[in-house]
Amino acid sequence: MPLTPSLSQIAQAVASGQRSASEVLEACIARIEATEARVNAFTGTRFEAARAQAAQVDAQRARGEPLGPLAGVPFAVKNLFDIAGEVTLAGSRVNRSNPPATADAVLVQRLQDSGAVLVGSLNMDEYAYGFTTENTHYGPCHNPHRPGHVAGGSSGGSGAAVAAGQVPLTLGSDTNGSIRVPSSFCGVWGLKPTFGRLSRRGSYPFVNSIDHLGPFADDLDGLALAYDALQGPDPLDPGCFATTVQAAVPKLDLGVDGLRVGLLGGYFVEHASAPAREAVATAAAALGASATVEWPLAAQARAAAFITSASEGGALHLQRLRTQAADFEPLSVDRFISGALQPAAWYVRAQRFRRVYRDAVNALFQNWDVLIAPATPVAAPAIGTEWIEINGQRFPCRPSIGLLTQPISFAGCPVVAAPMWPTGTDGLPIGVQLIAAPWREDLALRAGRALARAGVAHLKEPAL
Amino acid sequence: MPLTPSLSQIAQAVASGQRSASEVLEACIARIEATEARVNAFTGTRFEAARAQAAQVDAQRARGEPLGPLAGVPFAVKNLFDIAGEVTLAGSRVNRSNPPATADAVLVQRLQDSGAVLVGSLNMDEYAYGFTTENTHYGPCHNPHRPGHVAGGSSGGSGAAVAAGQVPLTLGSDTNGSIRVPSSFCGVWGLKPTFGRLSRRGSYPFVNSIDHLGPFADDLDGLALAYDALQGPDPLDPGCFATTVQAAVPKLDLGVDGLRVGLLGGYFVEHASAPAREAVATAAAALGASATVEWPLAAQARAAAFITSASEGGALHLQRLRTQAADFEPLSVDRFISGALQPAAWYVRAQRFRRVYRDAVNALFQNWDVLIAPATPVAAPAIGTEWIEINGQRFPCRPSIGLLTQPISFAGCPVVAAPMWPTGTDGLPIGVQLIAAPWREDLALRAGRALARAGVAHLKEPAL
Repeated sequence: MPLTPSLSQIAQAVASGQRSASEVLEACIARIEATEARVNAFTGTRFEAARAQAAQVDAQRARGEPLGPLAGVPFAVKNLFDIAGEVTLAGSRVNRSNPPATADAVLVQRLQDSGAVLVGSLNMDEYAYGFTTENTHYGPCHNPHRPGHVAGGSSGGSGAAVAAGQVPLTLGSDTNGSIRVPSSFCGVWGLKPTFGRLSRRGSYPFVNSIDHLGPFADDLDGLALAYDALQGPDPLDPGCFATTVQAAVPKLDLGVDGLRVGLLGGYFVEHASAPAREAVATAAAALGASATVEWPLAAQARAAAFITSASEGGALHLQRLRTQAADFEPLSVDRFISGALQPAAWYVRAQRFRRVYRDAVNALFQNWDVLIAPATPVAAPAIGTEWIEINGQRFPCRPSIGLLTQPISFAGCPVVAAPMWPTGTDGLPIGVQLIAAPWREDLALRAGRALARAGVAHLKEPAL
Repeated sequence: MPLTPSLSQIAQAVASGQRSASEVLEACIARIEATEARVNAFTGTRFEAARAQAAQVDAQRARGEPLGPLAGVPFAVKNLFDIAGEVTLAGSRVNRSNPPATADAVLVQRLQDSGAVLVGSLNMDEYAYGFTTENTHYGPCHNPHRPGHVAGGSSGGSGAAVAAGQVPLTLGSDTNGSIRVPSSFCGVWGLKPTFGRLSRRGSYPFVNSIDHLGPFADDLDGLALAYDALQGPDPLDPGCFATTVQAAVPKLDLGVDGLRVGLLGGYFVEHASAPAREAVATAAAALGASATVEWPLAAQARAAAFITSASEGGALHLQRLRTQAADFEPLSVDRFISGALQPAAWYVRAQRFRRVYRDAVNALFQNWDVLIAPATPVAAPAIGTEWIEINGQRFPCRPSIGLLTQPISFAGCPVVAAPMWPTGTDGLPIGVQLIAAPWREDLALRAGRALARAGVAHLKEPAL
């Protein structure tokens, strides 16, 4: 069922000498060239540089030198990651006049240091402010499982490139759901780590106090492999002012059967369509979970996340909004402007709420290792959709896609998005969020592995 | 030169049985009754409760039980500290309709646990938003060294009560200078500890992200004694979200001669009148210091502190401003309202600046143990003064009193304000700030002790 070969299979095949990095790369380039016209995941490719890098991996191997754990794995990154010598667009037209980056982003560098081969940069919502990657400047990214439908956003290119089999590994960012939403819509694995855990140096910010970076992959073992390569402290991380503190959670050493898994009720059921609920039920059954858990203050957390995002995003772009508003994305420029005009009193209240909220959320994990909820209320809507229906209620489409992800990221918990395939979606996937306590990515990944082994979470061949 | 007996002398006299707590208290009550009409430091007294408490100390002693380190020391607190059974006014009229506090503030409780005897609550600027304690509801607090002149603020009552010899120990709060300014104007010792160090539970807030609490005393040893009684963690401290992190400063064990003391130049000289500069020169000579140090980004830090204070203060009082604006202090209500209307974009920029600023400030302390600067640009102005002159330049009086304190508190460093008596002030004092690295109150106190021993920093008999 997964694409063949997957990330971890490629890593193994290159490590064992079964396939060369160059051979893997050429297959990847051929796949990109065959599918990109229908997907529009890439905004830039660097095949010649990639060929040189792959050749270097193969030469290392020929010389008998040790290879990194991701040697020969092709990857691509959301175009808000710096790539030395290229202009970091962050999905915008405005940034085109910026000078090229002088160094790779830390996470790009870390993947390359592990032997992975960078092939290009990926489409996204402008300045990461959206859930659909309907980018007016670079064109919408299409869902590989149904072109004409959105790939999700803001890391739409990162989800679609993996789903289309173009690359087995991508990087994205997630402030309010921007990794988990495209994972859900495209049916791939995604990881939004604990707030503050991965270095943000060399990435273009959106909301400094909520931005996260993380990987997408086409299999769970590959996701864990990539995460391992990405993690580790960075004293120059501009996000290291994060107040996240490692909770004193006892290191568990349980088999999957020992994981205490709960299902989020209330808000997370009310805002989930029947297929989304089915996806959660399937995951719950595979994990042997049945208890319902109430996540505290979810609606308020979403409101506070909106206020925080608009205020910090508006503040970040204030100068450009004053002078170049006409060059901004029409779908989000009004939100930026209104964010820049929001009163500080709202922002201060949202901040104060966040502390209380985070404490209330963290307390849940005294009793639970992993909590599960849908990643999106519905499957991928058609491009241009203005309204969606959830349980008979009408919601504005673009903001409501984040209904179930925003409350989780505002608390800072790590989440693995697992690709699930419920009925009633005409074959489109819906992801399930596997949510753990801060700094317990291991537990979320372990639950993901259980779903993969049970055969309920996996990729599917796209309809390209 | 100090008032007799001072805090540490009282503590010693009661501990040794030389004087009873009741005897000390009656002298204190007599002094309050003799001077209060001219000072207006108190907004509430509780002499009967204090008498019972003092009798209890004396009974403990009679029974041979061990006494606390502050046994029998009378004290009073700024009226933003909760006292069980009393309404916490925080200098306002609006709060009069609040229910009485159900428990003492943590710091009040800690002093009482150490044997200190609470005699009343003290005048302040409404909601701590001012530098002069010209309180319209409760009348201005007068400077004991020159009635008709301000005592400073916002903890004006706390400074004046000690200077007037009414009590040897008081508590106040300091957001932008509210402990250091009245210490300077009244000629008493004050300590603004490291941001986040003393628990704020049970105190009425002003600016959550900058508020500090701390003691005033009539001698340096007493200040240190009180600080010792106040410190210690409180898991329920509402201010414990403070991101202050203990710097890895090596524990020094130097004599005073070994302290590396620098004088702040630039901004801190330009905004200091000749007497203020004289006070610093005298302190520097006593500490053997001569090198000038540039404190980074002082003017920007003051601007960011203003923005942060107005935004958080405005947000805190938003509901009351909407419905009871006419009951607010006329001298500060406009600032609260404009603060509530400030854009979040400003606040976000101020916050981001603060991180950069704090890092730049903390780096100074790799080379210096204590940095010195005046606490106020001038000596206490007459009540009602609208304009002051500093080095030939005209400044609006009320906000400019904090010119030299705001940049320091915004960085969170601990400061001892030492009472100095330069010439050219018609006998009024000007304090000197002894500034140390975060969590190094010990170094600031040690420099204070050196000034006390050298005879240059001390209290004087007031002109009452």
